[in-house]
Amino acid sequence: MAMRFTLARASTRPQRTQLLNPLAIASCVQHPARPWRRCISTAQSEAATPKPAVKFTSESYPSLKRDSRFAQLTADHVNHFKQLLGSAAVLDAVTDEAVSDEVDGFNSDWMRKYRGHGKLVLKPGSTEQVSQILRYCNQHKLAVVPQGGNTGLVGGSVPVFDEIVINLGRMNQVRHFDDVSGTLVADAGCILEVVDRYLADRGYIFPLDLGAKGSCQIGGNVSTNAGGLRLLRYGSLHGSVLGLEVVLPNGTIVNDLSRLRKNNTGYDLKHLFIGAEGTIGIVTGVSVHCPQRPKAVNVAFLGLESYDKAQQAFREAKGQLSEILSAFELMDGGSQEIVAEVTKNRQPLDDKHPFYCLIETSGSNSEHDSAKLEAFLESVMAKEIVSDGVVAQDETQVKALWGWREGVPECIGHWGGVYKYDVSIPLKEMYQLVEDTELRIREAGLLGDTDDYPVVAVLGYGHMGDANLHLNVGVRRYDERVERVLEPFVYEWIAEREGSISAEHGLGLAKKKYIGYSRDGVMVGLMKQVKQLYDPNGIMNPYKYI
Amino acid sequence: MAMRFTLARASTRPQRTQLLNPLAIASCVQHPARPWRRCISTAQSEAATPKPAVKFTSESYPSLKRDSRFAQLTADHVNHFKQLLGSAAVLDAVTDEAVSDEVDGFNSDWMRKYRGHGKLVLKPGSTEQVSQILRYCNQHKLAVVPQGGNTGLVGGSVPVFDEIVINLGRMNQVRHFDDVSGTLVADAGCILEVVDRYLADRGYIFPLDLGAKGSCQIGGNVSTNAGGLRLLRYGSLHGSVLGLEVVLPNGTIVNDLSRLRKNNTGYDLKHLFIGAEGTIGIVTGVSVHCPQRPKAVNVAFLGLESYDKAQQAFREAKGQLSEILSAFELMDGGSQEIVAEVTKNRQPLDDKHPFYCLIETSGSNSEHDSAKLEAFLESVMAKEIVSDGVVAQDETQVKALWGWREGVPECIGHWGGVYKYDVSIPLKEMYQLVEDTELRIREAGLLGDTDDYPVVAVLGYGHMGDANLHLNVGVRRYDERVERVLEPFVYEWIAEREGSISAEHGLGLAKKKYIGYSRDGVMVGLMKQVKQLYDPNGIMNPYKYI
Repeated sequence: MAMRFTLARASTRPQRTQLLNPLAIASCVQHPARPWRRCISTAQSEAATPKPAVKFTSESYPSLKRDSRFAQLTADHVNHFKQLLGSAAVLDAVTDEAVSDEVDGFNSDWMRKYRGHGKLVLKPGSTEQVSQILRYCNQHKLAVVPQGGNTGLVGGSVPVFDEIVINLGRMNQVRHFDDVSGTLVADAGCILEVVDRYLADRGYIFPLDLGAKGSCQIGGNVSTNAGGLRLLRYGSLHGSVLGLEVVLPNGTIVNDLSRLRKNNTGYDLKHLFIGAEGTIGIVTGVSVHCPQRPKAVNVAFLGLESYDKAQQAFREAKGQLSEILSAFELMDGGSQEIVAEVTKNRQPLDDKHPFYCLIETSGSNSEHDSAKLEAFLESVMAKEIVSDGVVAQDETQVKALWGWREGVPECIGHWGGVYKYDVSIPLKEMYQLVEDTELRIREAGLLGDTDDYPVVAVLGYGHMGDANLHLNVGVRRYDERVERVLEPFVYEWIAEREGSISAEHGLGLAKKKYIGYSRDGVMVGLMKQVKQLYDPNGIMNPYKYI
Repeated sequence: MAMRFTLARASTRPQRTQLLNPLAIASCVQHPARPWRRCISTAQSEAATPKPAVKFTSESYPSLKRDSRFAQLTADHVNHFKQLLGSAAVLDAVTDEAVSDEVDGFNSDWMRKYRGHGKLVLKPGSTEQVSQILRYCNQHKLAVVPQGGNTGLVGGSVPVFDEIVINLGRMNQVRHFDDVSGTLVADAGCILEVVDRYLADRGYIFPLDLGAKGSCQIGGNVSTNAGGLRLLRYGSLHGSVLGLEVVLPNGTIVNDLSRLRKNNTGYDLKHLFIGAEGTIGIVTGVSVHCPQRPKAVNVAFLGLESYDKAQQAFREAKGQLSEILSAFELMDGGSQEIVAEVTKNRQPLDDKHPFYCLIETSGSNSEHDSAKLEAFLESVMAKEIVSDGVVAQDETQVKALWGWREGVPECIGHWGGVYKYDVSIPLKEMYQLVEDTELRIREAGLLGDTDDYPVVAVLGYGHMGDANLHLNVGVRRYDERVERVLEPFVYEWIAEREGSISAEHGLGLAKKKYIGYSRDGVMVGLMKQVKQLYDPNGIMNPYKYI
């Protein structure tokens, strides 16, 4: 059971032995092996009907037109690739309609929101093959989409029209590991979870973790500058990636696979490719500095009266937990009620609170960490910053508490759909966006408890430690009136506060046209210069990014 | 006094009350306010004679010729700048020879190794002024050298010929600090130590520390991607810098001063300017994520039998001290004997050891940290990884122990000069470079105890935690025979092991021609492309870098 930590007004209450129902929620917790495995599926699967085909992106975005600079794929092209890679590494629906369905799987994203018309999937087995593919495509003006685990949220990893998919999945070997320095060098197509297990066996940890770890690939992580759950502790990939191997659109292999933490020898070009979403090259190899794996993990779940108190708690946690603080997640009351409603689980705390925080510590000494966490909790209770809370007593409860955070994105989609915004906002004003958005939707008469209203709830949750808010508007049905109320309102609101319209999900297709809300004309101009420099034919992941 | 930690063979020895002489060494410890203040000065100052003028770089490097693309400075140019900035912000030896000596100070580096022929120093007070200066210089083909605290070690921050010095020292204001997130935004000309004190008052710490903190400026730190003492704990500036304000050579002001930890909106161009050494723009503002300041700092000083044991100790320290390990420094026996000889201080440990390590922990709970350190020390003693050691009992002793590490670079120069190499090498082979170099010099008959031999000692020390070795060859006099034995041998040795010829000091003028040992032709070609893109007239810090 979870141990309720001492608090004056609760001291006379009996401890609940069934405070949490870990098993009920455990299946939706932590890193589903496949990101598209829906964890809160009971209610949905009961009502499940065969899924309709995903709408083509070209239909959802009718203003997008195929770029006529690009050549049309021919049987000659396909034959060239078969000779280059071997037939087994080429999935060809250009000349063989029988594999159309299989190819379609590489055309659609896991959210079933984007779908391209691609006819060819190439699966290179080496950096040299990637180089030969790109050189040929560049010469023949064939557009391509680099694809890792295809777990992105912004439509960046699937074609829009007939771009060739270059899937890195076959390049999945660890090339080198140094168990003194913790430096790992691996192929881009390695699955994040596989690499993390490899490291766990050696006492190390990959400095990145995210829900899709069972499918996503480290090359894709780097190419999208994935943020995730460990950023608060281990920082961004710009800090932990030591080197990259990249193939440029013209086929040039850039060998910058440094295994050194310090290397001040010229412009650090690898950073251009971290977060470039495959628009100026394909990452084929990654060298990363891996930290020591923590031996002890503790999790506390707190109820708070206000967002202001949540900020105070964060400040206190940074001060008191300092080097062992590994996550500080925020969930508003509405988000937790929805998880409870969908999962039918009892919430970790007896009473309702306007805000909840999940705090995780990771360290090398369990006893010390527990002592620090207890002292912290006593202190924030005494200062009346936190109203109530529980601490997980074992790993099952750790997972269960995490489930109340990680279950939100799934549960909010329960009623039909979700408008999702992944944004960064300076902490002081971060949650205000949720309140302002809810007010706006309510005033527009779109939010209510019955089917007359499209909007079910406006929720906020996210990585408070990184000032990264997920604003979710759960709807019964997609409705243009809701969209008009939300956009450009949300983007303007963020721009006024110098926030970011894309904290960790990237631009892809979804946010290409909104970059101006987070970057000024000078910046966008400089970015286009870089794109032009590396990819003058524009073959790399077209229609997206900037 | 320093407490000797328990070790079997030493248990019967009395504890020395005067084991350390903190005051004697303290003055050379930790961050001299001015980097050119020589800390081990007694012997030297006794024999001091007026210093000869620094040799002009153009004489030391006779193959360097002034680039005839650049215009010659005229009185008209100078008048333009005086109108732009006000006369007080212009140090003009073009039309006024009376200030030649003052201008000379901006022409010479603190090592007195490089000296330019510059006649004009501009001290802009705002980003807008920097922009106007650069736009004018670019239009008129006037070459410039951006200059921060001028504490570099590779000749990057002073002119070679008649380049205009643009000194950022007047831009020294903190612009913004968020005490919840720890985000600091400040002018590039802020002194590192001043900023760190500002942060200390608020419970935070700058994620970078280095010996020159009393003089160096954060804009220069960013522009050289300074590494320093806290990298092991807080990572590189690529991870902690959140945003930059940069003026491009054509005067364009790039406002990328994000205060967000997550911001995936396009190519992350700021990284191009981190470590660019002022060759493609001038950093005028910095946004940086600052960690919580540790409350407890402990330092241990260990003696070890071999480099292999030092590696084992590092591995153990990472495992057991993990999140509180903030420094793991290596010093070889020779380096410590030289510090003892020059300072006349008694070494921290009774016996001589081939290697010494300095371990620092920083955390939020003194008791926990001490317990972890003690447990670590007991364990490495029991495993016979460490032969002997002491732990500092108070801040004075912390400084004193650090003195044995930080005093090395000064002491090794005691006999006349030093050939210095700041390199990164994969840990397993790192120290081998020192042994191979010493053998080579000894075999060449250049190393000995009398004046007949130019070389006094070949030493290795450095940031073991970052695989960053400082190879120092102390000499009685500079001698071309020594240079020929050292180069290109050292660079070839490093290249064979995929090390870096410049770990943290940068390229500047000193290493421009050696970049090929750490970067291949493709990489250098891509770098030149970037230089050409941003600075087509080549006015920024010419003759240096790549």
